[in-house]
Amino acid sequence: MQETGSISIHTENIFPIIKKFLYSDHEIFLRELVSNAVDATQKLKSLAQLGEFKGELGELKVRVTLDKEARKITISDRGLGMTGEEIKKYINQIAFSGATEFVEKYKEKDAATKDQIIGQFGLGFYSAFMVADQVEIFSQSYKEGTEGAHWTCDGSTEFTLETTEKAERGTDVVLHVAADSDEFLEEARLRTILTKYCKFLPIEIEFEGTVINQTQPIWTKQPAELTDEDYTKFYQELYPFSEAPLFWIHLNVDYPFNLTGILYFPKVKDELQFQRNKIQLYSRQVFITDEVKDVVPEFLMLLHGVIDSPDIPLNVSRSFLQADAAVRKINTYITKKVADKLGELFRKDRTGYEQKWSDIGLFVKYGMLSDEKFYEKAKDFVLVQNVGGKFFTLNEYQESVQANQKDKNEQLVILYTTDAEAQHGYVVAAQDRGYDVLQLEAVLDSHFIGQLEQKLEKTTFKRVDADTIGKLIEKDETTASVLSDDDKTRLQELFAKAISNEQMHVQVDALSPQEAPVIITMPEFMRRMKDMQRTGGGGGMAMFGSLPDSYTVSVNANHAITQRVLQADEESALKLARQSFDLALLSQNMLKGEALTAFIKLSTHLLSAE
Amino acid sequence: MQETGSISIHTENIFPIIKKFLYSDHEIFLRELVSNAVDATQKLKSLAQLGEFKGELGELKVRVTLDKEARKITISDRGLGMTGEEIKKYINQIAFSGATEFVEKYKEKDAATKDQIIGQFGLGFYSAFMVADQVEIFSQSYKEGTEGAHWTCDGSTEFTLETTEKAERGTDVVLHVAADSDEFLEEARLRTILTKYCKFLPIEIEFEGTVINQTQPIWTKQPAELTDEDYTKFYQELYPFSEAPLFWIHLNVDYPFNLTGILYFPKVKDELQFQRNKIQLYSRQVFITDEVKDVVPEFLMLLHGVIDSPDIPLNVSRSFLQADAAVRKINTYITKKVADKLGELFRKDRTGYEQKWSDIGLFVKYGMLSDEKFYEKAKDFVLVQNVGGKFFTLNEYQESVQANQKDKNEQLVILYTTDAEAQHGYVVAAQDRGYDVLQLEAVLDSHFIGQLEQKLEKTTFKRVDADTIGKLIEKDETTASVLSDDDKTRLQELFAKAISNEQMHVQVDALSPQEAPVIITMPEFMRRMKDMQRTGGGGGMAMFGSLPDSYTVSVNANHAITQRVLQADEESALKLARQSFDLALLSQNMLKGEALTAFIKLSTHLLSAE
Repeated sequence: MQETGSISIHTENIFPIIKKFLYSDHEIFLRELVSNAVDATQKLKSLAQLGEFKGELGELKVRVTLDKEARKITISDRGLGMTGEEIKKYINQIAFSGATEFVEKYKEKDAATKDQIIGQFGLGFYSAFMVADQVEIFSQSYKEGTEGAHWTCDGSTEFTLETTEKAERGTDVVLHVAADSDEFLEEARLRTILTKYCKFLPIEIEFEGTVINQTQPIWTKQPAELTDEDYTKFYQELYPFSEAPLFWIHLNVDYPFNLTGILYFPKVKDELQFQRNKIQLYSRQVFITDEVKDVVPEFLMLLHGVIDSPDIPLNVSRSFLQADAAVRKINTYITKKVADKLGELFRKDRTGYEQKWSDIGLFVKYGMLSDEKFYEKAKDFVLVQNVGGKFFTLNEYQESVQANQKDKNEQLVILYTTDAEAQHGYVVAAQDRGYDVLQLEAVLDSHFIGQLEQKLEKTTFKRVDADTIGKLIEKDETTASVLSDDDKTRLQELFAKAISNEQMHVQVDALSPQEAPVIITMPEFMRRMKDMQRTGGGGGMAMFGSLPDSYTVSVNANHAITQRVLQADEESALKLARQSFDLALLSQNMLKGEALTAFIKLSTHLLSAE
Repeated sequence: MQETGSISIHTENIFPIIKKFLYSDHEIFLRELVSNAVDATQKLKSLAQLGEFKGELGELKVRVTLDKEARKITISDRGLGMTGEEIKKYINQIAFSGATEFVEKYKEKDAATKDQIIGQFGLGFYSAFMVADQVEIFSQSYKEGTEGAHWTCDGSTEFTLETTEKAERGTDVVLHVAADSDEFLEEARLRTILTKYCKFLPIEIEFEGTVINQTQPIWTKQPAELTDEDYTKFYQELYPFSEAPLFWIHLNVDYPFNLTGILYFPKVKDELQFQRNKIQLYSRQVFITDEVKDVVPEFLMLLHGVIDSPDIPLNVSRSFLQADAAVRKINTYITKKVADKLGELFRKDRTGYEQKWSDIGLFVKYGMLSDEKFYEKAKDFVLVQNVGGKFFTLNEYQESVQANQKDKNEQLVILYTTDAEAQHGYVVAAQDRGYDVLQLEAVLDSHFIGQLEQKLEKTTFKRVDADTIGKLIEKDETTASVLSDDDKTRLQELFAKAISNEQMHVQVDALSPQEAPVIITMPEFMRRMKDMQRTGGGGGMAMFGSLPDSYTVSVNANHAITQRVLQADEESALKLARQSFDLALLSQNMLKGEALTAFIKLSTHLLSAE
């Protein structure tokens, strides 16, 4: 025995699935029905253009009306309309995509038609049953000599269909709102939904006497037609209380995917202020979502604006988006456009670019870290700024400091501060040596310098307090110590006793008499490991428990105080050592708690008695 | 003309939707097919228990095998099996739920059966076509005298069905893996998927010779059967490298929804370390997701563990979950169980509870802030800790400080520090007055004290540096000033000139001679507004731009230095005023940059020359 047959779908069982699974937000029903109405209107306009419809188009508004008393929402269009037979074909057979058939039929005649057709599956209509317990359709086809049709369904799989008189061409969909959906009988609620989803639909949508949409949003126009004011005005419309954007990119691509849109670079003050999910995703001018994760590269989520593409699959989950080839291409395209725009700004208006750097810098560095291709483009226009406020490209900076900042192994040592205020003493010491110091303030920068050290040849970064000034960039010169080895040992022991802290590793160094008597430093690698640990990076490092703080305490063998410590009796020596160590702690912003209170008390006492 | 009819679904068109939309992760196919196999096995066991099947059950393993060469994955069970007719009924008619019918038929006999049946819609089988271009079923029903059936389908809607010889009872589903799904021909990949979804299925699953699951995970057992070791061992299995959990809650509810599970309180060090999405959601022992948002209250997302409930709708999006009534009930139930458990721990073992407080505290406060009902329960077991390290409940603390810390308006003033080290001088000053100081260190606490001020009667919180010690808790006593009004004015002007900073509002106060010569404070309301601004709260406040820092500088009219300032010539007076102001800045950790470097230089000089 062998037989063949067709798999069939049991409608009673799949109906609830369509309602529940395909659309999780009930409010979507309005987007779907208005989109269908716009669709039917667009199709009629296409037919008129092709000469297949020769009647009067008349006013082609879509009207949404609410009758709260009667618990009715009506969506009316003056588009194609449907005959009874067409209703049976398009409405009664779920997932028979009317749009597909229409495109098939006309595709040779007008390729552009395809883009005007909303609705992929023809399932949207049934979303009406998410909020309505009865749905009626009144329709009059544009075809001459056809009768009006009236279709009714109560959400079961049974329907009735009868002829009717309908004066106007087009379709009215009437929803009898269900008891559990009272929220949709509120005018304000409906207006909010319409504004959210239909604000930029290409056919006028009228709700309670006012048109709620702009039929030609600026992203559908050519950049040549638009002024800067058009762009900033549109930005203000999208984000009413925001500062003006820094600049923008008009996206417009036909192949290998279809995408238009405008991306704005917002003004941001710091990393905390970043607001993600400010990009709105549209499909043929219908709002879909503002969760653009995976459509837009992670580091560009910080941009604002709109993206409109019929090629982005809708209603699908995140993991599906990730795998989608079209989405990956869009991603690559947007990254490239942004890099090109930044490069152009840098070349055409360096001054303006530098002024915007505090806002752009984070995007650029984040992008370089997360996308190798972006790094390659951005390495020529990423900027660094020194404590004097001057900007350099990476090449310019290497050029500018290499004469003075190469160590004895020909390694270029770039000095930086993460807080020019807090590390002021160290910055001044470096500048006094003729070194330049960069400002790197953001958390991001610790990753950024790690990347640069991998990419740039023979270049390392050191924070200004990573070592005493003489050793920060090791040259072949040394300062001689005025002390004997015995004195050095005695000094080391005295300070170690005075400080009495295992995390402080005391050593006696021959520094210049003009330097501080005591200097506290933390080796660069140690500080970076601790930074990594703190920001949660470093993989499994947390498993080893918290890394202890570990500092180097350099006692300046050549300082006047050091001489006095050696000459004093032990009690005075320890006191003096402690006081000069306290000053070193102060310089590192590390004198705290009880020690600070004691220090202040002593200083106040000295001041009162002076 | 009027007609009625049935809405039908066009299979060719909906088929791709089922494939694409219902399951966004392709790997799900294996979960679905193994679940179906387990389902068929469970059903057979039920029938045997009911006496409807009298044959030998034999070994009831489900076997998954991979033949990479032949590009085949086979899932075999020894369950019910299907006749040709049953295949036509259950497989060829999509969405005809076999499970539903089975339950209907047997529900009077055995209510528990219902819970053993996996698969709600019968759609799962078709997920096979996400990865296979041809699927075969070989099946032999348990019913005596029936023939084996062999069904084949190539992913179109056409199938063939023929009789076959099959020695063993049960069903083999054979997937011929499609060219674009090579990843599923890797043994390691399949093992990963099986371990992820099927680790706790109730029937043994064998893959390439090893059983991959535990059929009776501990959450399916009764708490009375389990030891602490069972719970911690299970925790280690779920999260291999984690520290032992603090405690756990075994969830077990039948009505009005069905839910079992175990929630663990992890050890956490600070807010940054919280790892969300550590709770795994199961439905009848099948892993569904670790994104439990909306199923578990926001503040309990920080917990770890498993939740198993057939009542949570699967494969639906977030916004749908939010609206689902069952989910809301589960939410409420979990919150209540957690509150009860915490209350019990507090009452039964106060010492242990206090030791765990640093880990629990964040959960509790976060919960109190986000859930009114939780607040009501938690207010009796939330703890505060003073700088001495002692713990109090809210009632205990109010009792303990009310004798000493009521101001002249009978308002209880609770003093706190956000950093006992940095605010050390102020803490000591408060303690010297006999006041107690609480430690509140987390960002969360600023919201927490806001809540307490609303809830507790006549109680306010003030940071120790919100005012000079005499005014922090205003009593009726005052210290007299030794200065004339003229001197006061002169002093105010001198200090204002020496400080020369608009953000510093200088005033002359009659403080005790033992207090500091200059004290810098920031009024409580001002500091809270700034905190709010910094953490991004306060709604539209960002619109007004950044609030400037604004401090009160209290010059102590009764301090010895003040006398010296008045007596000195203007140059010395200004220098002395600046020096004592610098000491006040130091105490507030506000002496920075150039000013700090100059201060250190001066102090070093004094120390060298002493």
